[in-house]
Amino acid sequence: MSDALNLGIREPIYEVVEVSSSGMVSTRKINRRHLLKSSGLRPRDIRSVDPALWLTNTMPSLLVRENAILLNLGSLRAIAMQESVFIFNYNRRAGKAFIDALLPRLNPKSVHGGPVMPFELEVVEAALHSRIQRFEDKLMDLDPRVQALLEVLPNRLTAGILEQLRISKQTLVELGSKAGALKQMLFDILEDSHEIRRLCIVGRNCILSRNDDLECSVPHEKQIAEEEEEEIEMLLENYLQRCESCHNQAERLLESAREMEDSISVNLSSRRLEVSRFELLLQVGTFCVAVGALVAGIFGMNLKSYLEEHVFAFWLTAGGIIFGAVVAFFLMYSYLRARKIL
Amino acid sequence: MSDALNLGIREPIYEVVEVSSSGMVSTRKINRRHLLKSSGLRPRDIRSVDPALWLTNTMPSLLVRENAILLNLGSLRAIAMQESVFIFNYNRRAGKAFIDALLPRLNPKSVHGGPVMPFELEVVEAALHSRIQRFEDKLMDLDPRVQALLEVLPNRLTAGILEQLRISKQTLVELGSKAGALKQMLFDILEDSHEIRRLCIVGRNCILSRNDDLECSVPHEKQIAEEEEEEIEMLLENYLQRCESCHNQAERLLESAREMEDSISVNLSSRRLEVSRFELLLQVGTFCVAVGALVAGIFGMNLKSYLEEHVFAFWLTAGGIIFGAVVAFFLMYSYLRARKIL
Amino acid sequence: MSDALNLGIREPIYEVVEVSSSGMVSTRKINRRHLLKSSGLRPRDIRSVDPALWLTNTMPSLLVRENAILLNLGSLRAIAMQESVFIFNYNRRAGKAFIDALLPRLNPKSVHGGPVMPFELEVVEAALHSRIQRFEDKLMDLDPRVQALLEVLPNRLTAGILEQLRISKQTLVELGSKAGALKQMLFDILEDSHEIRRLCIVGRNCILSRNDDLECSVPHEKQIAEEEEEEIEMLLENYLQRCESCHNQAERLLESAREMEDSISVNLSSRRLEVSRFELLLQVGTFCVAVGALVAGIFGMNLKSYLEEHVFAFWLTAGGIIFGAVVAFFLMYSYLRARKIL
Amino acid sequence: MSDALNLGIREPIYEVVEVSSSGMVSTRKINRRHLLKSSGLRPRDIRSVDPALWLTNTMPSLLVRENAILLNLGSLRAIAMQESVFIFNYNRRAGKAFIDALLPRLNPKSVHGGPVMPFELEVVEAALHSRIQRFEDKLMDLDPRVQALLEVLPNRLTAGILEQLRISKQTLVELGSKAGALKQMLFDILEDSHEIRRLCIVGRNCILSRNDDLECSVPHEKQIAEEEEEEIEMLLENYLQRCESCHNQAERLLESAREMEDSISVNLSSRRLEVSRFELLLQVGTFCVAVGALVAGIFGMNLKSYLEEHVFAFWLTAGGIIFGAVVAFFLMYSYLRARKIL
Amino acid sequence: MSDALNLGIREPIYEVVEVSSSGMVSTRKINRRHLLKSSGLRPRDIRSVDPALWLTNTMPSLLVRENAILLNLGSLRAIAMQESVFIFNYNRRAGKAFIDALLPRLNPKSVHGGPVMPFELEVVEAALHSRIQRFEDKLMDLDPRVQALLEVLPNRLTAGILEQLRISKQTLVELGSKAGALKQMLFDILEDSHEIRRLCIVGRNCILSRNDDLECSVPHEKQIAEEEEEEIEMLLENYLQRCESCHNQAERLLESAREMEDSISVNLSSRRLEVSRFELLLQVGTFCVAVGALVAGIFGMNLKSYLEEHVFAFWLTAGGIIFGAVVAFFLMYSYLRARKIL
Repeated sequence: MSDALNLGIREPIYEVVEVSSSGMVSTRKINRRHLLKSSGLRPRDIRSVDPALWLTNTMPSLLVRENAILLNLGSLRAIAMQESVFIFNYNRRAGKAFIDALLPRLNPKSVHGGPVMPFELEVVEAALHSRIQRFEDKLMDLDPRVQALLEVLPNRLTAGILEQLRISKQTLVELGSKAGALKQMLFDILEDSHEIRRLCIVGRNCILSRNDDLECSVPHEKQIAEEEEEEIEMLLENYLQRCESCHNQAERLLESAREMEDSISVNLSSRRLEVSRFELLLQVGTFCVAVGALVAGIFGMNLKSYLEEHVFAFWLTAGGIIFGAVVAFFLMYSYLRARKIL
Repeated sequence: MSDALNLGIREPIYEVVEVSSSGMVSTRKINRRHLLKSSGLRPRDIRSVDPALWLTNTMPSLLVRENAILLNLGSLRAIAMQESVFIFNYNRRAGKAFIDALLPRLNPKSVHGGPVMPFELEVVEAALHSRIQRFEDKLMDLDPRVQALLEVLPNRLTAGILEQLRISKQTLVELGSKAGALKQMLFDILEDSHEIRRLCIVGRNCILSRNDDLECSVPHEKQIAEEEEEEIEMLLENYLQRCESCHNQAERLLESAREMEDSISVNLSSRRLEVSRFELLLQVGTFCVAVGALVAGIFGMNLKSYLEEHVFAFWLTAGGIIFGAVVAFFLMYSYLRARKIL
Repeated sequence: MSDALNLGIREPIYEVVEVSSSGMVSTRKINRRHLLKSSGLRPRDIRSVDPALWLTNTMPSLLVRENAILLNLGSLRAIAMQESVFIFNYNRRAGKAFIDALLPRLNPKSVHGGPVMPFELEVVEAALHSRIQRFEDKLMDLDPRVQALLEVLPNRLTAGILEQLRISKQTLVELGSKAGALKQMLFDILEDSHEIRRLCIVGRNCILSRNDDLECSVPHEKQIAEEEEEEIEMLLENYLQRCESCHNQAERLLESAREMEDSISVNLSSRRLEVSRFELLLQVGTFCVAVGALVAGIFGMNLKSYLEEHVFAFWLTAGGIIFGAVVAFFLMYSYLRARKIL
Repeated sequence: MSDALNLGIREPIYEVVEVSSSGMVSTRKINRRHLLKSSGLRPRDIRSVDPALWLTNTMPSLLVRENAILLNLGSLRAIAMQESVFIFNYNRRAGKAFIDALLPRLNPKSVHGGPVMPFELEVVEAALHSRIQRFEDKLMDLDPRVQALLEVLPNRLTAGILEQLRISKQTLVELGSKAGALKQMLFDILEDSHEIRRLCIVGRNCILSRNDDLECSVPHEKQIAEEEEEEIEMLLENYLQRCESCHNQAERLLESAREMEDSISVNLSSRRLEVSRFELLLQVGTFCVAVGALVAGIFGMNLKSYLEEHVFAFWLTAGGIIFGAVVAFFLMYSYLRARKIL
Repeated sequence: MSDALNLGIREPIYEVVEVSSSGMVSTRKINRRHLLKSSGLRPRDIRSVDPALWLTNTMPSLLVRENAILLNLGSLRAIAMQESVFIFNYNRRAGKAFIDALLPRLNPKSVHGGPVMPFELEVVEAALHSRIQRFEDKLMDLDPRVQALLEVLPNRLTAGILEQLRISKQTLVELGSKAGALKQMLFDILEDSHEIRRLCIVGRNCILSRNDDLECSVPHEKQIAEEEEEEIEMLLENYLQRCESCHNQAERLLESAREMEDSISVNLSSRRLEVSRFELLLQVGTFCVAVGALVAGIFGMNLKSYLEEHVFAFWLTAGGIIFGAVVAFFLMYSYLRARKIL
């Protein structure tokens, strides 16, 4: 990924939406080289949010760099800087939800009394909020449907309902996996106090010393940053908890659906056995009747058996056939019962 | 969730049951803004107990804030403050069980000698107690039923019993998942000594310094709080152990039920094979008889074969048919045996 | 569980076997209040060994309190005190095995040279020993039977053998789960050096200071307790290892049995397919013969076809029927082969 | 593996590609003894990259020794030294991809401003890059195919599509397992700060003291090494994240495919039941018709029943047969419905 | 297990192979009491290597005691002391492989330059080497066979090949479980620096102080022991890696085999459905033909229908029967198609 590798390749151009800290939304085209220069990021960092690498950077990540925070939350990829945020892939639903969540926060009227959070952190919170809100909405949509399926299922095993169960399961697998990945990311950040501190000093004239102590040019800033630390932790914990709830609920529904499928499978097996056993019973009957019919057929041949004129020959034969068939049937039936096949 | 987002939205009103520390129970309607003011909580905190967010805050949580403890134990959501506790969603069964568990503890006669626990902690214990008691009751109800099913099952595979197994499994999945989540929550609190300390100083004039040391305005209080710490740990450990027992027992029953289903599935498969093999045997017989019947039928056609009057033609043909059918049957039978199909 | 809750409830009376440190065995009835007083335990502690709560305290536990050690090892529940041990539920097998393991240890002749272990620790070791011995005995009984099943199974798929496999699996699930829980308990104690120290000072005039340092009234005792610490750790490690062996072996057998069941399931499926394919082949034959029989039957109707007297009509028709049936059979057969159904 | 063991064994000769730090590529044959001498490695170390031990050193590893780094990344095995890198097994695809990734980095023109990374680290990065790129390429190829399968599957259950699903699953299992192993390796290195430091000082005149402090002969080098430490961590973290993405995506696809297979299995079961039920219905019909045919056949026998000339005997019998068959059919049908078999 | 318990029991006598540090191999019978005395071990320790307890000490273990190292690596059980090693159960294959691996190491000529490792450590290395070599050999044998099965399987589903798959799976389960247990043991030792130190001082005049510091009577020995520490760690890490490779590879193959079985199961299900559907089609045909045959049979009865002499009656009836059968067939066929059963 070093520049040398890209010598012959046209510099990629990203279409981004820029939201400035004053709430101005504009669409821009920005080429990679320019993005690297303006954000002070390394080429490697861009990878984690590059929408062209859709399939290979699916893990959510939140990278804190000196002048920027890189956000990759599944379908939302953004770079938050001191004055503005670049949102890739802006026409996707996730981007819109994010902008909808971000704009009200930038409204100076709506600050809730306390000190204003830096722009970058507002971006991070809006991104997490819009993303987790999406999970919750999906779950709120899925949950009652799955519950309804689970109730109706054992008694109404139609193809359509099985198909619905299958689709719900696939959605739950995906939702659970995404929520799990996001949960893990939040958990990892919360575990890493160094990362939290770097979040605190983003956009301030502070640096972290080797032993994780803050050193700010303005003493006042240091105090603010330290106060902010706990605030950020609680914010992340809050989103972690919501994310965990989603993940847990998705897993629980998925497990219920799986257990249901297993039970259905046994249920179907048992019903097929029932059907097979009755089929077998009928086949026993059919066989006996067929043997009888064969005997009757033999006597129906246009050949002389010299019994044709015997009195009672008809009734004896007919009786013999029917009696033989019934006896054979019951013999076989009791044999099958004894062997526990029927 | 900032206020700005709620500008156009009517402030939600919660219906809560208030139990004061003196044991007075009253029903109140309280709006969100007022609740925030009276409890000193942040909007974000309320989310975790808000019953309207039923589906998305399913993870149990116990949040300790400066003046309040937020309890979300599945269907029980409450805010414990110094003088009273607000129970949301009060007409649910969980709320009632909680109040039933709480009231006797507030009875001044029943204090067990030692120092009285602060009201908030009594609330926490009552909540945990009522919640885990519910798990235990459910399990005590389920366990004998599942055991009975497991004993009766391999021999009585009726649809009704399979359905009972399925329902028990679904209940166990849910119970195991809930108990597991509660266990995890208790475990996390016990791991986090900072959180325990914050529980200790709830409702006292103490603060936690940066390095987790207690600083109280009244020296006496500090001593009490420190003594209380071990008491709280043992209390939580006790509930953790009960919760773990429930979780473990539910998992064990679930695993037994799953193994049973797998075994039933193999059992059914093997019985279906048995039935199929006998069916095949009969089909071999039927086929041979049918061929014989065809031959007999051919001789029964109203067409002249010029054998009609031959002496013994009848007996030869009839004998040939029967002999042929029997021979064909045994040839096929031994072929199938040799190929291990029968 | 506070006393207040029990105001109207009759004080429960436990039937216990008391084994004194001198080896005297006696049966007693003791009521809860008295037990609490004599052992210095809290009501909460009793819960973990109370045999009445059979289903909800299934997790094994070993609680060290100031004057007593509470043992809950599945079906063995006991309270070890300085001078005697109370065994609940004494007529169960586990209680008897425990007493059998304990009594020889109390025989003053059999001390193996070194310093005598305090009575409580002898009790703990006897309990662990009798419990794990039980697991090992069960496993020694199961292992050869499962191995024999696994060897005989693929070739002899009778209902009886499948049933034996099922029962073995259920027993292994239970054994594995119990051994796993006990292993976890031993592991947790070994991890918790504080708990080990508390085990050391049980029954001595020592206390543990805040920072886990021993403080004894008699200096000599401190030294002994410290020496005992390593001894106890090695003892617990030894039982942990035995328990882990049991757990592991049970899991391994269970996994083998599961894989076997999966393989049997595939095996049965493949054999059913084989049977079905042959059935299909026969059905093709039967269908062709039936069509031929229909034609023959039609010519056998007592209706005039004006072919009755044609020379060769019989032989042509008969030949046509048989030829048609055979041709139809081979056409269908090759069609099914081409579609890979047969 | 000591020399003594190899006394009688011919010294193995490895065919390697040597890439020098100046970018020269040459193929060499090198015998084991010589390799050990020139690299300062121990016999044991060579094992981990020896391509002859293909099957038993499948776990990826990155071993840092005093003068060399041993790389085993699945099909890529190399030894990086100060001046050159030996690539085993060079005609494999992995080796070629590695050389393609390495050569541009050695081009002195392409250094990206900052201090040049030591040759060994360039080798490590090129190896990781080429390896993970391979995973990503495979995944980019698989993902759309699996997604297409999952969409088309429930409705088009042909053997070919099932086979494609099977092959995709096998590829995903392998890919997931390899990516997981590589991820674990990167994670372990990142956890082990000692290993990172050893990576930093490779090829410098520095040693690590007991307590992990750097001691360099040239003070300037120490500073560079320390600066490099963070750089290396970020580099490894970057690859870890890419690898985690691959692993996660493979697992997610695999889980989707598994759920799909389970659903297909239930779907097939349910359809087979449907088919079986209709078969049973037909068999009921066939049985009734066969009984009717038997009766008709009996009357068709060339025996005298003395009913031959009765007027209406034909119509009565014929009507009786048909009526009887129809009634029998409906009786059986309603019986089967009542027993919920049909 | 105290002596008291063994009063009435005959002292067990072990048959062991003794290999002295000079390479002398001799077979001896040694009774338990004597073994305890000569090795300075406790009765408890012997348990972990006692071959009589075959089933209950299956977990591999490496116990370091003051004067001996107890080795239990599955089928290899040995006690390594300063001057000799006792190998239990010597006629088993594992024992022989171990002696084969050990003897060359004792050859004074083959020391590889550096300081000679103490005899006990040579024993440990030889044991690990012989054990892991065995895993690797088994895996090298299994891997190509499983790969071949996986390639041939979807197309050739014969009973023999399924049986081979089953046996391979059982072997993989066992191999994976054993390699996993050994891996865990090596990992645990490597984690426990205290244990490593005890390994270092085995057979030296050194003791470990409370805080894990070495105290040797000869200062020179302390230095050697400290240098040996890293050597031992690298040795164990090397074996850990080999063991992990085996475990991983076994797990990967097992997972592949499982996925294959699942896929086969679905494949068989789908083929059975295919067969069933064709069977159903034939049954529809057979039913229609049977109805036709019934009608023909009715007209074939020796009863007067007074249609006998009607011109064209034959052709009308015959045509009606055939037409009716064909029409009925297509009606049923289109009905089944519409219901998606066919």
